[in-house]
Amino acid sequence: MPGATDQTLRPFLWRAQKMFPDREVVSRTHEGVQRYTYAEYGDRVAQLANALSAAGLGDGDRVGTFCWNHHRHFETYFGVPSMGAQLHTINPLLPDHHVQYIVENAADRLLFVDPSLVEKLDEAYDEEAFASVEQFVVMGEEVPDTDLSPVTDYESFLADEDAAYDWPDLSEDQPAGMCYTSGTTGKPKGVEYTQQMLWAHTMASLPEAGLDLRSSDVVMPVVPMFHVNAWGMPFSTTAAGAKHVYPGPSPTPADLASLIEEEGVTLTAGVPTVWLGLLDYLEENDADMSSLETIVIGGSAAPQSVIRRFDEEYDVDVLHAWGMTEMSPIGTVARLKPGMESLPKDQQYDKQAKQGLLIPGLEMRVVDDDGEEVPWNGEDFGELWVRGPWVTTEYFERPEANQEDFEDNWLKTGDVVTVDEEGYVKIVDRAKDVIKSGGEWISSVELENTLMANDGVAEATVVGVPHERWQERPVAFVVPAAGTDEDALKAELVEMVKAEFPKWWAPDEVVFIEEVPKTATGKFDKKVLRDQYDDQSLVE
Amino acid sequence: MPGATDQTLRPFLWRAQKMFPDREVVSRTHEGVQRYTYAEYGDRVAQLANALSAAGLGDGDRVGTFCWNHHRHFETYFGVPSMGAQLHTINPLLPDHHVQYIVENAADRLLFVDPSLVEKLDEAYDEEAFASVEQFVVMGEEVPDTDLSPVTDYESFLADEDAAYDWPDLSEDQPAGMCYTSGTTGKPKGVEYTQQMLWAHTMASLPEAGLDLRSSDVVMPVVPMFHVNAWGMPFSTTAAGAKHVYPGPSPTPADLASLIEEEGVTLTAGVPTVWLGLLDYLEENDADMSSLETIVIGGSAAPQSVIRRFDEEYDVDVLHAWGMTEMSPIGTVARLKPGMESLPKDQQYDKQAKQGLLIPGLEMRVVDDDGEEVPWNGEDFGELWVRGPWVTTEYFERPEANQEDFEDNWLKTGDVVTVDEEGYVKIVDRAKDVIKSGGEWISSVELENTLMANDGVAEATVVGVPHERWQERPVAFVVPAAGTDEDALKAELVEMVKAEFPKWWAPDEVVFIEEVPKTATGKFDKKVLRDQYDDQSLVE
Ligand SMILES: Nc1ncnc2c1ncn2[C@@H]1O[C@H](COP(=O)(O)OP(=O)(O)OP(=O)(O)O)[C@@H](O)[C@H]1O
Ligand SMILES: Nc1ncnc2c1ncn2[C@@H]1O[C@H](COP(=O)(O)OP(=O)(O)OP(=O)(O)O)[C@@H](O)[C@H]1O
Ligand SMILES: [Mg+2]
Ligand SMILES: [Mg+2]
Repeated sequence: MPGATDQTLRPFLWRAQKMFPDREVVSRTHEGVQRYTYAEYGDRVAQLANALSAAGLGDGDRVGTFCWNHHRHFETYFGVPSMGAQLHTINPLLPDHHVQYIVENAADRLLFVDPSLVEKLDEAYDEEAFASVEQFVVMGEEVPDTDLSPVTDYESFLADEDAAYDWPDLSEDQPAGMCYTSGTTGKPKGVEYTQQMLWAHTMASLPEAGLDLRSSDVVMPVVPMFHVNAWGMPFSTTAAGAKHVYPGPSPTPADLASLIEEEGVTLTAGVPTVWLGLLDYLEENDADMSSLETIVIGGSAAPQSVIRRFDEEYDVDVLHAWGMTEMSPIGTVARLKPGMESLPKDQQYDKQAKQGLLIPGLEMRVVDDDGEEVPWNGEDFGELWVRGPWVTTEYFERPEANQEDFEDNWLKTGDVVTVDEEGYVKIVDRAKDVIKSGGEWISSVELENTLMANDGVAEATVVGVPHERWQERPVAFVVPAAGTDEDALKAELVEMVKAEFPKWWAPDEVVFIEEVPKTATGKFDKKVLRDQYDDQSLVE
Repeated sequence: MPGATDQTLRPFLWRAQKMFPDREVVSRTHEGVQRYTYAEYGDRVAQLANALSAAGLGDGDRVGTFCWNHHRHFETYFGVPSMGAQLHTINPLLPDHHVQYIVENAADRLLFVDPSLVEKLDEAYDEEAFASVEQFVVMGEEVPDTDLSPVTDYESFLADEDAAYDWPDLSEDQPAGMCYTSGTTGKPKGVEYTQQMLWAHTMASLPEAGLDLRSSDVVMPVVPMFHVNAWGMPFSTTAAGAKHVYPGPSPTPADLASLIEEEGVTLTAGVPTVWLGLLDYLEENDADMSSLETIVIGGSAAPQSVIRRFDEEYDVDVLHAWGMTEMSPIGTVARLKPGMESLPKDQQYDKQAKQGLLIPGLEMRVVDDDGEEVPWNGEDFGELWVRGPWVTTEYFERPEANQEDFEDNWLKTGDVVTVDEEGYVKIVDRAKDVIKSGGEWISSVELENTLMANDGVAEATVVGVPHERWQERPVAFVVPAAGTDEDALKAELVEMVKAEFPKWWAPDEVVFIEEVPKTATGKFDKKVLRDQYDDQSLVE
């Protein structure tokens, strides 16, 4: 049978090491800002692979990481999969029982853990759930006080190892990575990434329609490396031969601003809240943002105001992207098409605030409740289905979820969208959050956007509560801004909604709460609210 | 087993059709310049697939093309492989016995042929060799006088077909394309391209390290579509959502200049002679080249003078690329690295005149006669070996060549190269053309460059002739410029070589000839010269 060599991560590492030996990897760690070159990076990655082999790890073994964004974590990104093992990044912000579930489910044999997260892991530790874990390695030069055992520090783990490794010829079907979904709509689900999926996602990230990465770029992923491989950027930045900047444990806006300024960051990426924080910081503080060209925003919807402010005040282009753990993760990117740069700015921002165009190599369809494709008119909506070489076709050991979420190799994303005439996708809601009232749909996301535009509202979320006659009715949960008159606000909010939407979209009740519960990825956790308010008394 | 959807060409077609419906495909044909949009293109591709199905073609059937660069040929690029058949592009410039060998070897079931090539195909027709061919389709609106039979015209072939086709889910291992090597060093060898190889090559062509294609680009492949799929550009241009311009049958420099000017071509590509022709034309004629940003030159070495003239006189960047039929075809691209734009121009041209950097996704090694890797110092040379997802691991039905040209999934390219400290590959010679004298190597290419720098030389080539004592000795074959004194020139040339190289590099004989024999791809055909001059009398 004709064919070619398998698609694996190895050539990306090889190319950066050999052709861009002097480009830098910069990392803010608990030991200060560290820097080295791809040449040294390559040596350390080989040392890591040798250390893992010496520890008895190899083909198909899962290696977990419980770490922030730094150079040592980045070393595991190539070191673990390229020697045949599987890199399983774990979100340290998850509640303990989720960490336990994930470590047990993945059967990790070794865990890398940051010094600042040792205590958290100690707490999450459970003998039964962690039964598969044979060793802990702390990401630094020493081991803090801990009950984790056996434990060593990363630098000792690597110290005596050879800086060359005879990287094996892996099959492209070999599992190389693993990540669990955020658990916004239920128990986190494991997604395995084969070498081929990571290869394809990397190649797809490079061109204009992806992130448009160039060798001259300086890339700082603020999105945590435990969120779907920091959106694949450690891989794609390496493939581009660009410079890496890792912002380390819990970076503040001041940390980010100073890294951008000092390292000449050209492209950075993260969830919306990070950039709101940076904008606030920049209002009060001086920082030179002139190197920065692009901020990739994803994970949740990028508010149009953020897009506008970065453009107007800092000449920075926001690239709004949508993705999923199931998609390695990038699916769409809201880059303007040729010609659109001459549209009025407001129309440009409108486009950029959508989730964007599917990137080359993927296919999609948008289907209504009857399974019919909806027209691309920016109005009709349906569930987005996607398929392609970096979209998984199954979850790890979750047959019921597989039944529900896949059909003929299509991933049913669970996101409800419109697509406009130009092909720009806009996420209207999660399928599970859409409110079905009297057979019609109400978008919880659009209601939330309207409510949050009121100055009296600090945060708001809307969920559907079961209703005998109408199936479901919307209830708003609002965190009032300090000093707001709640009764007046309530009336005002209902009026706002009625003015903008059909009358029956108005929430049946506005409940004031102190905080919107959030998931470990910072998304509104509507499950918790639904559990608390599942009785129908609110809407009768 | 975890995984994702197979890598096929389908999503590229889908995306261009749906997201860039109004971008144009422009084509110079015997009927004049034609233009339509991706939307119409998609309809016609579907019609073609339906027509092929109706003709009884499908899974794994080979469909040959004997065509220049135009929109109908482009329709076969997606139509044939996406319905499950295999697109086999045939070089119409080949001698008849090669065409016969290739059609018989590939067992093509249907042949598309250009009106202007019907006569040529008529001549090459051989009942036995063409036994597999069931039908001929002429690429136009009518059938010229011909013995080919049964025969129909393309527009009638498509006319009654539906403009929708239910594209199948193909395996990525499905053969999608086929092309034969140029036959420079022996009988042409068939290379099959799977869906996956074409997918990977397309993705690799898009980013900066490849051709850096953007949706705003206007791409004109001058390299024929029968030369390794016009270097994959019909696919990559579609994936980028860019505009296509096809220059049609035998375009003159005037045709090219007017298409560039009228269609706003930003990127074009072809072998060196095309661009020498364009430069000559532009010296005598006015044409607006201001839209043109990049010329990709490959197939043979791009002379530094061409790179310089396009930069200095037209502000056009030459992107020198190296590839092979076996590599789908792109392997290296000589793009400057960040920082190099501040080097003196001459040093920039030096780099650009090399064949360049291996593109991401591939790996290479350069090995000497003992199989040892040579250092990257720009001096030591050896044979270039490559591997990767768009590099074949076998020839079609050529077991002896497979034995010779592949080892452990590495393709031994047969090209002798140096690699400099920055990783830029420079082709020094073909392994088969390198002259081995007294155990040392002499580069025929370097000798040729020196000889051709003499104004008295129109063309020159150097081959090794067997020698009892020294194994081989160089003999130069020179086409003198009009009115040159041959004896004086001979002495001068030998002196030039001695001045620049070790004395023993000087040719033992300079033979004056009327023309350097060329292959169907326009490369010097040293086989012919060697056959003519294989006796040792020349060097004794
Ligand atoms: N740019 C964006 N705008 C709006 N929503 C987004 C965007 N990017 C991602 N999302 C949301 O995030 C989801 C993917 O998130 P992730 O894979 O981290 O897990 P989750 O879907 O939140 O959790 P779970 O699948 O376990 O319920 C998408 O399906 C979409 O709902
Ligand atoms: N930019 C370039 N500079 C120098 N040589 C090049 C360049 N690009 C391609 N080549 C030459 O062309 C070869 C590939 O050509 P192709 O696949 O068309 O067939 P061929 O090698 O000429 O013929 P055959 O393999 O049948 O002998 C390369 O191996 C190399 O020798
Ligand atoms: Mg999800
Ligand atoms: Mg060859």
